[in-house]
Amino acid sequence: MAGIRVLGINGSARKYGNSFKMLWIALKAAEDEGAETEIIHLYDYKLILCMACYSDNLYECYYPKRCPLGLEDQYHEIAEKILSSHAVIFSTPVYWFMASAAVKTLVERMTGMENMLYHIGKSLLDGKVAGIIAVGEETGATMALSWLMLTLNMMGFHIPAWATVYYHGKGDAMDNEQAVLDAYNLGRNVARLAKILAGKVDGEPWYSLDYRSRARQLAEEAKKTAMNNREAARRDRPWL
Amino acid sequence: MAGIRVLGINGSARKYGNSFKMLWIALKAAEDEGAETEIIHLYDYKLILCMACYSDNLYECYYPKRCPLGLEDQYHEIAEKILSSHAVIFSTPVYWFMASAAVKTLVERMTGMENMLYHIGKSLLDGKVAGIIAVGEETGATMALSWLMLTLNMMGFHIPAWATVYYHGKGDAMDNEQAVLDAYNLGRNVARLAKILAGKVDGEPWYSLDYRSRARQLAEEAKKTAMNNREAARRDRPWL
Amino acid sequence: MAGIRVLGINGSARKYGNSFKMLWIALKAAEDEGAETEIIHLYDYKLILCMACYSDNLYECYYPKRCPLGLEDQYHEIAEKILSSHAVIFSTPVYWFMASAAVKTLVERMTGMENMLYHIGKSLLDGKVAGIIAVGEETGATMALSWLMLTLNMMGFHIPAWATVYYHGKGDAMDNEQAVLDAYNLGRNVARLAKILAGKVDGEPWYSLDYRSRARQLAEEAKKTAMNNREAARRDRPWL
Amino acid sequence: MAGIRVLGINGSARKYGNSFKMLWIALKAAEDEGAETEIIHLYDYKLILCMACYSDNLYECYYPKRCPLGLEDQYHEIAEKILSSHAVIFSTPVYWFMASAAVKTLVERMTGMENMLYHIGKSLLDGKVAGIIAVGEETGATMALSWLMLTLNMMGFHIPAWATVYYHGKGDAMDNEQAVLDAYNLGRNVARLAKILAGKVDGEPWYSLDYRSRARQLAEEAKKTAMNNREAARRDRPWL
Repeated sequence: MAGIRVLGINGSARKYGNSFKMLWIALKAAEDEGAETEIIHLYDYKLILCMACYSDNLYECYYPKRCPLGLEDQYHEIAEKILSSHAVIFSTPVYWFMASAAVKTLVERMTGMENMLYHIGKSLLDGKVAGIIAVGEETGATMALSWLMLTLNMMGFHIPAWATVYYHGKGDAMDNEQAVLDAYNLGRNVARLAKILAGKVDGEPWYSLDYRSRARQLAEEAKKTAMNNREAARRDRPWL
Repeated sequence: MAGIRVLGINGSARKYGNSFKMLWIALKAAEDEGAETEIIHLYDYKLILCMACYSDNLYECYYPKRCPLGLEDQYHEIAEKILSSHAVIFSTPVYWFMASAAVKTLVERMTGMENMLYHIGKSLLDGKVAGIIAVGEETGATMALSWLMLTLNMMGFHIPAWATVYYHGKGDAMDNEQAVLDAYNLGRNVARLAKILAGKVDGEPWYSLDYRSRARQLAEEAKKTAMNNREAARRDRPWL
Repeated sequence: MAGIRVLGINGSARKYGNSFKMLWIALKAAEDEGAETEIIHLYDYKLILCMACYSDNLYECYYPKRCPLGLEDQYHEIAEKILSSHAVIFSTPVYWFMASAAVKTLVERMTGMENMLYHIGKSLLDGKVAGIIAVGEETGATMALSWLMLTLNMMGFHIPAWATVYYHGKGDAMDNEQAVLDAYNLGRNVARLAKILAGKVDGEPWYSLDYRSRARQLAEEAKKTAMNNREAARRDRPWL
Repeated sequence: MAGIRVLGINGSARKYGNSFKMLWIALKAAEDEGAETEIIHLYDYKLILCMACYSDNLYECYYPKRCPLGLEDQYHEIAEKILSSHAVIFSTPVYWFMASAAVKTLVERMTGMENMLYHIGKSLLDGKVAGIIAVGEETGATMALSWLMLTLNMMGFHIPAWATVYYHGKGDAMDNEQAVLDAYNLGRNVARLAKILAGKVDGEPWYSLDYRSRARQLAEEAKKTAMNNREAARRDRPWL
């Protein structure tokens, strides 16, 4: 499956720290699965904060055309790398129990890609695969991981099994066998799922607006089913 | 792909509420994709709290043989349903910004299935597909979703794109077009990914202990690469 | 300030583990500040799951009179201890990145105390002080802490500075100087704030329904102020 | 109690939106309690991302002297406002289920103030009072609130009862009676607790390194107590 591309995004200020090293291993694991990989350091790119036009008017947010920030910064360089990849692995340091502000800044800018659902019926991120690494000296890795995985999932990314990995501790993550093996499995799974899905691409989006009428029809049936359940519950719940 | 089985677990005390209805739609969507489905109400099962033997001794936790709770309660009935399904959709009410205690109780008991990694080299949940629905009158859905998706992912579940869905509000979720469509897409995606993966089953686990030496080797390389990056960073960081 | 009472609730299945020990230190620190303390183990009490009547009808939830679970279990024993304390310190193990199901079960039952706001104009927990400890072998402490502190705060508890503490690691928390000192400061601060507030009790609730008209009046002013800001923002946001 | 100063920080890109309006009400409520207030818009200040020197060397992080970002940006203007206030109310929009990147950027820079604990034995934020507002069209408020309240608490802020407030919805928060009343109570409580504490200032820090030996002594006692509990637990846990 030549052509699987996996992008690694290092969200740490420190290009030599555990966030970088864990990400590097994951990308090598993806290469072991035949993927081409690239790594970028988020701190190398100038990113301006999202203006949240979306909250003024949903339709103002349109990648890439209508973002008022235009080409002022280097967001589009990253965006193009993401769009041309089958999978993205985010590695974030844990600063105060959460992903870095640099990662949050990128995520906010990515709204425009997701929001294309309302313009062209499909998120530009629909069906991509994501892996997430969170690394910190102290605690907070799960808050960073769970926030980021939910966000990416709601943008259209699949999260393969064990594609969320953390390391916490003051030492070198590379000396921690568990962390290193976790990072390897993450990179392998991201590439593996991307390969499986690439062989299955049928163009149909994973979030589709086409099922509105079917869903509405089911909603009416669901109400009836629930009503029956409600009747049955009256014995224990006399206030119903 | 006859034979795809999707289990729906309703974690709400109310069998007639929005958690149930959203789940019901998701399961119907899975049926539209050809899956067989089943729905259970967690409150119908007696579950005893996990004793956390794991923290005394990792190897005590072994499904199903060694759990000291044995067959005292009805956990094993649920466990068998999970194990015989390709995918599981959890629907939880949001009580105080988090999944219900009933759901948490089940998740704790599932430790034994995941922990088989240390006994037989593979989690019993490895490679299954999960979807998650969180429903509440007020806020907190994302805390419930993100916690549960991280947990399930670290047990071995894949999370397909947009397989995390919420509804919040006091009214009937069935009257909310967005919520209903989200639930439909969730069920569809869970079944769709389960079908794709079922056609790809090669028996190899998604978390594998077999890559230890490869990972360790890469760890040494990662250290060297990071060291070079560290040298380059000295200009801006004289304290290095 | 004789009479300050601090209740410690151990939410762990293991009465001899780090959750217990950290809690024990916090309570001793409270005693050093002159408080009377008591410790209970949640696993010693039979607790039935909340039925979420609240979601059927807000007014059904009324402590202690109307809870349909009545006196079937031992919740009221714990509730009375909480109500007669000035402060409560919760210590939870981290099971799958979150507070234990036992703790979640207790929290759900406590809804009735908070919900008295709608019956008598005041939460029964209004103005109490809370401290929270989360302990786990692996990660997840911050998810447990942050969830529980938000919940308790929205029930009416004050959270003193540094009254959220964690320990993660496989060893004995008692050998970790940082963890032990953190637990000490937590217990000290909980007692200290409780003492300060006890000297200030003026009977007025911390959440008051009495400010409705003042709040509504301010809301109109806020709209006007925001409108001016909106005008000024038009230069950068032509779509406004 | 003339002299109580409450700073409001609006973390939204939109100076006219619900984040602003909710914050404005909270500040007026604080004024009703006699406080002086000031509101700033975070987007008016140029903030450079934290370099995380801390992770290279804990002692490099020292406010204000040693931060390598020096006076390049406008962080110090905000920092001085925070330091000269008794209480701070943060109002954040919810962008992708979390506080805005602007807020996260500020929080990361505040590390230097907290880290003074290791230089002078006291966080510069020790004993201040915080309130937090999170506002969004969709879900995620609790993730933003709980993350920020934990972080601020671990920097040294007290969180008064009901000082965490959210509004979610597409309309004007000012038309929502609950939201408006919540914001009022928040501002009132922040000012009220700040006043109570200002009358109690005894100079002693809320996190003190002075209790190390007392804590260590208690740790040894805790071990013994736990050991007794462990013996008693053996009946149910034969593997102990």
